Amino acid sequence: MISRMSVITLTTDFGLKDWFVGTMKGVILRINPRATIVDITHEIGCGEIAAGAFALAASYRHFPKATIHVAVVDPGVGSERPALAVRTRDYFFVGPDNGVLSLALAGQRILSVRRLTNERFFLRPVSRTFHGRDVFSPVAAHLSKGLALEKLGPRQRGFVRLSWPAPRLCQAVLHGTIVYLDRFGNAFTNLATADIARLGTGGLEVVLKRRRVGPLRSCYAAVPVGQPVALIGSAGLLEVAVNGGSAAETLRLKIGDAIKVRSI
Amino acid sequence: MISRMSVITLTTDFGLKDWFVGTMKGVILRINPRATIVDITHEIGCGEIAAGAFALAASYRHFPKATIHVAVVDPGVGSERPALAVRTRDYFFVGPDNGVLSLALAGQRILSVRRLTNERFFLRPVSRTFHGRDVFSPVAAHLSKGLALEKLGPRQRGFVRLSWPAPRLCQAVLHGTIVYLDRFGNAFTNLATADIARLGTGGLEVVLKRRRVGPLRSCYAAVPVGQPVALIGSAGLLEVAVNGGSAAETLRLKIGDAIKVRSI
Amino acid sequence: MISRMSVITLTTDFGLKDWFVGTMKGVILRINPRATIVDITHEIGCGEIAAGAFALAASYRHFPKATIHVAVVDPGVGSERPALAVRTRDYFFVGPDNGVLSLALAGQRILSVRRLTNERFFLRPVSRTFHGRDVFSPVAAHLSKGLALEKLGPRQRGFVRLSWPAPRLCQAVLHGTIVYLDRFGNAFTNLATADIARLGTGGLEVVLKRRRVGPLRSCYAAVPVGQPVALIGSAGLLEVAVNGGSAAETLRLKIGDAIKVRSI
Repeated sequence: MISRMSVITLTTDFGLKDWFVGTMKGVILRINPRATIVDITHEIGCGEIAAGAFALAASYRHFPKATIHVAVVDPGVGSERPALAVRTRDYFFVGPDNGVLSLALAGQRILSVRRLTNERFFLRPVSRTFHGRDVFSPVAAHLSKGLALEKLGPRQRGFVRLSWPAPRLCQAVLHGTIVYLDRFGNAFTNLATADIARLGTGGLEVVLKRRRVGPLRSCYAAVPVGQPVALIGSAGLLEVAVNGGSAAETLRLKIGDAIKVRSI
Repeated sequence: MISRMSVITLTTDFGLKDWFVGTMKGVILRINPRATIVDITHEIGCGEIAAGAFALAASYRHFPKATIHVAVVDPGVGSERPALAVRTRDYFFVGPDNGVLSLALAGQRILSVRRLTNERFFLRPVSRTFHGRDVFSPVAAHLSKGLALEKLGPRQRGFVRLSWPAPRLCQAVLHGTIVYLDRFGNAFTNLATADIARLGTGGLEVVLKRRRVGPLRSCYAAVPVGQPVALIGSAGLLEVAVNGGSAAETLRLKIGDAIKVRSI
Repeated sequence: MISRMSVITLTTDFGLKDWFVGTMKGVILRINPRATIVDITHEIGCGEIAAGAFALAASYRHFPKATIHVAVVDPGVGSERPALAVRTRDYFFVGPDNGVLSLALAGQRILSVRRLTNERFFLRPVSRTFHGRDVFSPVAAHLSKGLALEKLGPRQRGFVRLSWPAPRLCQAVLHGTIVYLDRFGNAFTNLATADIARLGTGGLEVVLKRRRVGPLRSCYAAVPVGQPVALIGSAGLLEVAVNGGSAAETLRLKIGDAIKVRSI
């Protein structure tokens, strides 16, 4: 059973230049003045659902049990796309049903999925352009006060899942993809520790765009400054960095680039 | 009567690169450790009073009653420009008397305007360059603890009002202006729902820089991706966007551009 | 004696684009749900230890006594560089031992320096790339709950101090250096009020890159818009600005540029 808690996280593409995020917090505090609101990030690229999903998936499990995670990367706002609240074993998730919640949900046991239809818990009149303010924030605030999920709307079977590149093992070579570039220019791949373990316990070599990055290291500083380095990063994924520099710039990486790991 | 509350919002042009905003929060928490501080935005362009005023006006009413709204876009800091605290029916406002509060105040019944002169409620010595830290933050913190507005300084009649473009109806054409561009490249105009209602209930056409944007739609996704769309946005104002793109870039918009709405 | 308090500040180069800062807050709230977390800044340039040290030094003293200041600009993360918690007369400081804490510590009486070795207070397993999440956040959270510093690890004598340019007085000319450029393009120097006082009480002239900026003024608006102005800024340091503009751009300033003050 999830006890009532009052941490609400926000992951959006609203940016910090405008008043959008502040307004969401105002709406939440009007409903629950005791909520603790934490920004995960608001600098997801405009409409980049996969980046929002990845940021949420990489962070959600570090919050207290029963935290309410709100993710709003919502290019279809105001159209007929459903809005959801999901209860999992450990958390609540609130957002549009467009895949932005799906990478986080993949790591949780799902107890209930509800479609947000009960306007009683919305800010009315609901605008057609800012459901972050009018739908998702008030719903999260009501949940943080202990509202039962069932009050929000009817049960929905399933939800939109993001298509996500799968690792592929072929003739002792593990094929992966760069899925995220962070502020430092570090490249996150879709290759988890368990995938790499399938290559056995011998020596490994990482190859990125025909460039041999070398074996797995234990930290950035294990190579000279300016040199590329491959390691298991803080998200438990294979990561390529440049010590003291930007792998994205130095190696001209972009999301979708192929990466290989092979036994040597 | 306004009950004592402890939400303080901050709207500034201080940016997030430096320590300015964090320092304001430290000053507030020293005086009132129980204050809940919410950032509206700190990325107002340097010295852009109108943008700060617009951001505050678009968001302030979504906060709990008695919230203390602090706005510091203050190119005249340290000069003789007055500093104000204003009590309205629903809120408090604190900031320089340069117009940054005026768009929000236009929507509120004003109960009292006080000039901030009582240095007892400042951080001393008061610097000549950072009244956000030395004047506005401590005053807001004291107000959040229930300090009576009258203690802050003498009554002032009126305050600086921003010159703001007025909609103009001429031969069944409503003439407006772009007043704000947001992160998504959406263009906010000065045309409110009530202005547009004066054109009657027939069909409408929006024209922007000699380009026909078309009729009012209900949401961004009502037009194909990449196409411009006009709608009433979340601030209750006519807004021009590009579905899945940036109207500011695609249509090369800037603040001050003219927009027309006409019956068809 | 320092009473138990629960303000934790964060100063990092993690940026706001990714989930790193939000994750640190989640970790803190899991351990101490009552902590008040304040961002000083997360937009320190990647790996720019001196900028992080300067931001912390300029802001830390405005926070409530016993605030726990966490600074993570940590290009050596995962290597053998020590991690520290320091108790001073007024505050706690937590961060890598690479100088990022040293400018703030220079202004405080130091009571105890401990090396963080007790993994019981870390998030385990500790990653090699994100000690902000796995080491510094949990340690700060435990301190905010009253954990005794001595539990964190063994005493360490001293800590890494940043090399910092010293003002130099030579033949009635005070030689200084630009040490920081802020969002507005204002240039902060290493010349404090006390340094300038050594030039006596007569007239002063500030010279920057062979350009005479003029005497010390009292505020930005003391010169016409577009003109450079020298004054004592909010950090108690000589600052060069351009009224209504950016000194960094107009005067093409960069960190390390020389500045002179002389009697006239």
